Amino acid sequence: MPVITLLTDYGTGDEFAGVLHAVIARIAPDARVIDLTHGIRRQDVVHGALVLAATLPYAPPGVHVAVVDPGVGTHRRAVALRTVEEQRLLVGPDNGLLAPAAGRFGGVAEVVEISTSPWRLEPVSATFHGRDLFAPVAARLAAGAALADAGASLDPDALVALALPRPEAGGTLVATVAGVDGFGNVALHAGPQDLAAVGVRPGGEVRVGALTARYVRTFADVEPGAALVYEDAAGLVAVAVNAGDAAAALGVGPGDRVELVPA
Amino acid sequence: MPVITLLTDYGTGDEFAGVLHAVIARIAPDARVIDLTHGIRRQDVVHGALVLAATLPYAPPGVHVAVVDPGVGTHRRAVALRTVEEQRLLVGPDNGLLAPAAGRFGGVAEVVEISTSPWRLEPVSATFHGRDLFAPVAARLAAGAALADAGASLDPDALVALALPRPEAGGTLVATVAGVDGFGNVALHAGPQDLAAVGVRPGGEVRVGALTARYVRTFADVEPGAALVYEDAAGLVAVAVNAGDAAAALGVGPGDRVELVPA
Amino acid sequence: MPVITLLTDYGTGDEFAGVLHAVIARIAPDARVIDLTHGIRRQDVVHGALVLAATLPYAPPGVHVAVVDPGVGTHRRAVALRTVEEQRLLVGPDNGLLAPAAGRFGGVAEVVEISTSPWRLEPVSATFHGRDLFAPVAARLAAGAALADAGASLDPDALVALALPRPEAGGTLVATVAGVDGFGNVALHAGPQDLAAVGVRPGGEVRVGALTARYVRTFADVEPGAALVYEDAAGLVAVAVNAGDAAAALGVGPGDRVELVPA
Repeated sequence: MPVITLLTDYGTGDEFAGVLHAVIARIAPDARVIDLTHGIRRQDVVHGALVLAATLPYAPPGVHVAVVDPGVGTHRRAVALRTVEEQRLLVGPDNGLLAPAAGRFGGVAEVVEISTSPWRLEPVSATFHGRDLFAPVAARLAAGAALADAGASLDPDALVALALPRPEAGGTLVATVAGVDGFGNVALHAGPQDLAAVGVRPGGEVRVGALTARYVRTFADVEPGAALVYEDAAGLVAVAVNAGDAAAALGVGPGDRVELVPA
Repeated sequence: MPVITLLTDYGTGDEFAGVLHAVIARIAPDARVIDLTHGIRRQDVVHGALVLAATLPYAPPGVHVAVVDPGVGTHRRAVALRTVEEQRLLVGPDNGLLAPAAGRFGGVAEVVEISTSPWRLEPVSATFHGRDLFAPVAARLAAGAALADAGASLDPDALVALALPRPEAGGTLVATVAGVDGFGNVALHAGPQDLAAVGVRPGGEVRVGALTARYVRTFADVEPGAALVYEDAAGLVAVAVNAGDAAAALGVGPGDRVELVPA
Repeated sequence: MPVITLLTDYGTGDEFAGVLHAVIARIAPDARVIDLTHGIRRQDVVHGALVLAATLPYAPPGVHVAVVDPGVGTHRRAVALRTVEEQRLLVGPDNGLLAPAAGRFGGVAEVVEISTSPWRLEPVSATFHGRDLFAPVAARLAAGAALADAGASLDPDALVALALPRPEAGGTLVATVAGVDGFGNVALHAGPQDLAAVGVRPGGEVRVGALTARYVRTFADVEPGAALVYEDAAGLVAVAVNAGDAAAALGVGPGDRVELVPA
């Protein structure tokens, strides 16, 4: 049974994600469709790219659709590509969204431009390429069609790269907020090596805004109400308050800059 | 593999939608169940009816459950019907919810009243007919049972019609808000022909509240922060702000009236 | 086709639930996975336990994963168990979450500790046992592996019990709010027998805060805007306002105490 995964910024409040399932079911009735998430921050390509790269290794190889697409309706390219390792097929806009995920699997072996794919649903709407372009192309690929038949061949080096925010490590660590989960935990564009670079060791303390957080392994290592810094499940440095809401305490959201000061 | 689609106003915050899946899986273990959406505005039959009619053409023919049911627990009828074209089976309350979707497929060929269907789960609760009535009837149909065995035959002409809000076009166009998506884009109960009727042509401008919007094809046709009017993926006239939130700017939500003044 | 059900407090705003699906699809590609809900109140074990017990009877027998786990990363046990009736397999933390559901099926026939299960994904993260432990164990079981091979055998009597809030019935009924649904309906930890114990009969009235509610069967038994008390689909006493929001009117949420005074 072929697998198709979906990752979008559509949310679950309306029918957009459901329509992708509908379109796929017509073309590839035997495919198993997995919603990785439709909760990517609206039009946040960096967020989508990081979540896609972090989650795909847990999914079986298959066809992986990702749609975070602020340039829909413009001349940005739409692409389908095959990775070097595991022969995964990634489908989405060419805006950097697919790049880190492809990198996880050895890079891009083959890529085609699908903007005028023969498999698209006509007429292609100006605003809903998920339905009219990405889902039908993914479904055809899942049903066994060849990638080369999805569109015109493209040089992998021509793909748009993703510019990831990097932390700045001087005496302190200044990092961009990558995301806030439903518990108010704040994930940063920084890894444990970035904490080490400013001299913060496991068990040590760091000041973040008004919080003084201990660098520990998990929530239960600090008292309820106390702040902590830890490596989250995606490998990012995160700030949290045990049984509290760190994002509210810090007043930050995705894209904001946070300074971590060794204490 | 038979297909069942679900469209409700249950939301995804609790277990209601999940229980529909559970009930169906017991009765029709081989059916493929597609959540079109559970995000219909609470008890908004018009919203549900429009989304159902707009999404079903993208789904494979099958059994299509819709539940937006302010009259649950009253004497409103519950029905299952077969469409003239594609032999789709629609299941839900008889309150107009199914009517526009049936119309998309040539109208109603056969309909049965299922309120006391032999397939219902006993005891039928007063508040959760999705679980006790609509899901089990849909699952039996998907598993191959005959529509005529679901309940008592009913005259298609006896079905409740849906009264859709129509725009008023004088010197200006006054239309009802059909829905607001997660981006704040405002869809209206009006089509491009209604804009044409008040003399607004593609490329022209229209004033909506404090916004001056250009009538274009897509977001990228205006600058970030600028307002636009366009035909959305469902064929409705919509008002948006590129990289902004038109619903917030206008202070409107579904059911509100909006006036478009040719500029 | 084996069935796996999921019930968590992850929400649907991020990729946590999707990753469970991904992990399962790698190990048990033929399993049918049903999301009962990911909307359990964050870390509210009692809420999760009640919803699991109320929904499982509607689902086919299978492997049932539940994750509401405030103790993740501590020494709380993780378990997989088989029920006496229907041979259902329940997988989750040993914090009382699984207990009422197991009780619905005759109790626990066999249980194993899975914290160091050979089927876990290494390295097990400190915060995401759903991905690294519960999902892979559930998938192996669904694929046909024996429960005894999932971990070390445990005495069923050693399982943590769930302490449910009980109503206090004197001249009035004081009950804890079990949950509030998307309509603002307030479900209480009390049953119809508790109303009877304070002398409230069907058709009678009861005061709840500023509301005077009639004890009826369903919403349509009172006028729009009027309050009602009824038995909800899960068998709990609930307070609602027809076409209104009882939780807002009462200013209560899950865990709060509410007093019902016979009028």
